[in-house]
Amino acid sequence: MSEFDLINQFFKNTKVKRDDVLLGIGDDCAMLSPPPGKTLAVSTDTLISGVHFPVTTSAEDIAYKALAVNLSDLAAMGATPAWVSLAISLPDSNTKWLEAFMHGFNELAERFNVALIGGDTTQGALSITVNVTGFVDADNALRRSTAKVGDGVFVTGNIGDASIGLDIILNKNSAHINFTEKNKEFCINRLNRPDAQVLAGQLLSEFSISAIDISDGLKADLNHICKASGVGAVVNVEKLPVSEALLNFYNHQPDWSKILTAGDDYELCFTCPKVQVSAMQSLMASHDIKTSCIGEIVPGIDVKCLLEGDILNINNNGYNHF
Amino acid sequence: MSEFDLINQFFKNTKVKRDDVLLGIGDDCAMLSPPPGKTLAVSTDTLISGVHFPVTTSAEDIAYKALAVNLSDLAAMGATPAWVSLAISLPDSNTKWLEAFMHGFNELAERFNVALIGGDTTQGALSITVNVTGFVDADNALRRSTAKVGDGVFVTGNIGDASIGLDIILNKNSAHINFTEKNKEFCINRLNRPDAQVLAGQLLSEFSISAIDISDGLKADLNHICKASGVGAVVNVEKLPVSEALLNFYNHQPDWSKILTAGDDYELCFTCPKVQVSAMQSLMASHDIKTSCIGEIVPGIDVKCLLEGDILNINNNGYNHF
Repeated sequence: MSEFDLINQFFKNTKVKRDDVLLGIGDDCAMLSPPPGKTLAVSTDTLISGVHFPVTTSAEDIAYKALAVNLSDLAAMGATPAWVSLAISLPDSNTKWLEAFMHGFNELAERFNVALIGGDTTQGALSITVNVTGFVDADNALRRSTAKVGDGVFVTGNIGDASIGLDIILNKNSAHINFTEKNKEFCINRLNRPDAQVLAGQLLSEFSISAIDISDGLKADLNHICKASGVGAVVNVEKLPVSEALLNFYNHQPDWSKILTAGDDYELCFTCPKVQVSAMQSLMASHDIKTSCIGEIVPGIDVKCLLEGDILNINNNGYNHF
Repeated sequence: MSEFDLINQFFKNTKVKRDDVLLGIGDDCAMLSPPPGKTLAVSTDTLISGVHFPVTTSAEDIAYKALAVNLSDLAAMGATPAWVSLAISLPDSNTKWLEAFMHGFNELAERFNVALIGGDTTQGALSITVNVTGFVDADNALRRSTAKVGDGVFVTGNIGDASIGLDIILNKNSAHINFTEKNKEFCINRLNRPDAQVLAGQLLSEFSISAIDISDGLKADLNHICKASGVGAVVNVEKLPVSEALLNFYNHQPDWSKILTAGDDYELCFTCPKVQVSAMQSLMASHDIKTSCIGEIVPGIDVKCLLEGDILNINNNGYNHF
């Protein structure tokens, strides 16, 4: 099958149609009409087989994750997703694989009304590069650089599940007997199908918030906020929100060091001024979004993790590609 | 060296600064302010080592080409380049390689005032995915779908040099004795450092032109115009513009079949209504841009190649990745 047949069969006629896409796939460029007065938020992430997902991951899950991690970057700016470009490199022209891939991709694209506007399909080692664009009001965008001493440190949802999913797939760490088949499925799903916190980001943009998505591990990502804002942070580790599945896996004795440094959570870590905390939490709760206060921004330059008041030594500083 | 050190050292402080980049590299997303009333033209191309460039290609040339082929897509829409995202996958964190790579990249980015706004650096087989955005007036954009029967078919510059460059590097085809060292250097340069026809595209957008850039081979690319416009084309092969280096390589007996199907020329192929040809050619000549009429749009569905009036049988239909 030629590259052009592939384009026609898999990429050209996806369901999401947007008025701001004047010309989609099929010419030298897409032509897009951005909404007046809005700022564009743009992010690019590459996922490589065996590095960013286990080699056994299904085509559907690879696609879902490749789009989700990019939407997660938009979420961390408080932006509304709009357009996506998709560059796929794969070893051979496997139409079954591509069909499954696009099924997973379209499922998520349709949910967020993101139009596929272009890309490239090439022959090579399996890797996916996604470029997403969203819209945001520049004044309300959630930057990393606006954390202030005294702000509370929060996360959405729970953290640490994805790292258990990875351990299970790689047979790396054995689970406690209380860890059920349902728990296992839940953790693997958290790894393969992360939930980009787009709505959470949009709601948070009402407040004086700095935010980042947790991709490299909570400690490393919070450290990015600290560096960009010129502050330090204290995390009270016992306050980290974790799932029942995680508690079962570790038999209620979580490996905090691992949970703080494992990547792939794709929840948001954000700071919120104390005077806004109650309004922020009410708004988030009214949308069924769980937020947990896990610490505080302090003077300093790095992230200190305390477990019941004692300094926790961390073995690992978060995921690093090299 | 960590991914974050790489970003700081090589990607964060490039020379091109643009007022429309509100937030560059270093947050979850870049924030960009598009000019009011303009349409965005967006393209993505992946280059894979051993597929899109010989494995022996220097880091500088790889970078130059990766950006050039994307700028060429903007040129083919008549768009003005503005922003670029760069996803690099490379086997190891080789700072010397990256330094040379960014040298080649920045050279071209500076020439076209394109700001590097984001990207990703990952560990994997060597491949480069570039996403470029330019600005264009929607009404003047050069689409593939507007060719009309009776239009002349034109190309900018010369074609076929890059394929000779590739043959030389791969030791595939021996040159005639008249082919000088200077000719050789010229053809290799045409392969490694294609000249995106950005100005040509902008000038052509004044006219009722359909256009494409010649990346997969003239015949295949003109065929894309024909398909999109619902027309056929006749190419008079003896009119194809070729360089002195090419004539020397083939001892004045060009392998037309190869020249028509070889990729990597990155000239523009375009159609022009007869009544606009003289104004178009004057404008192009006044900017020292060579254009050659090589045929005509006719009723039909495909591209017919005639050599001195006789049908030329072509062995190959253009570059195809699979």
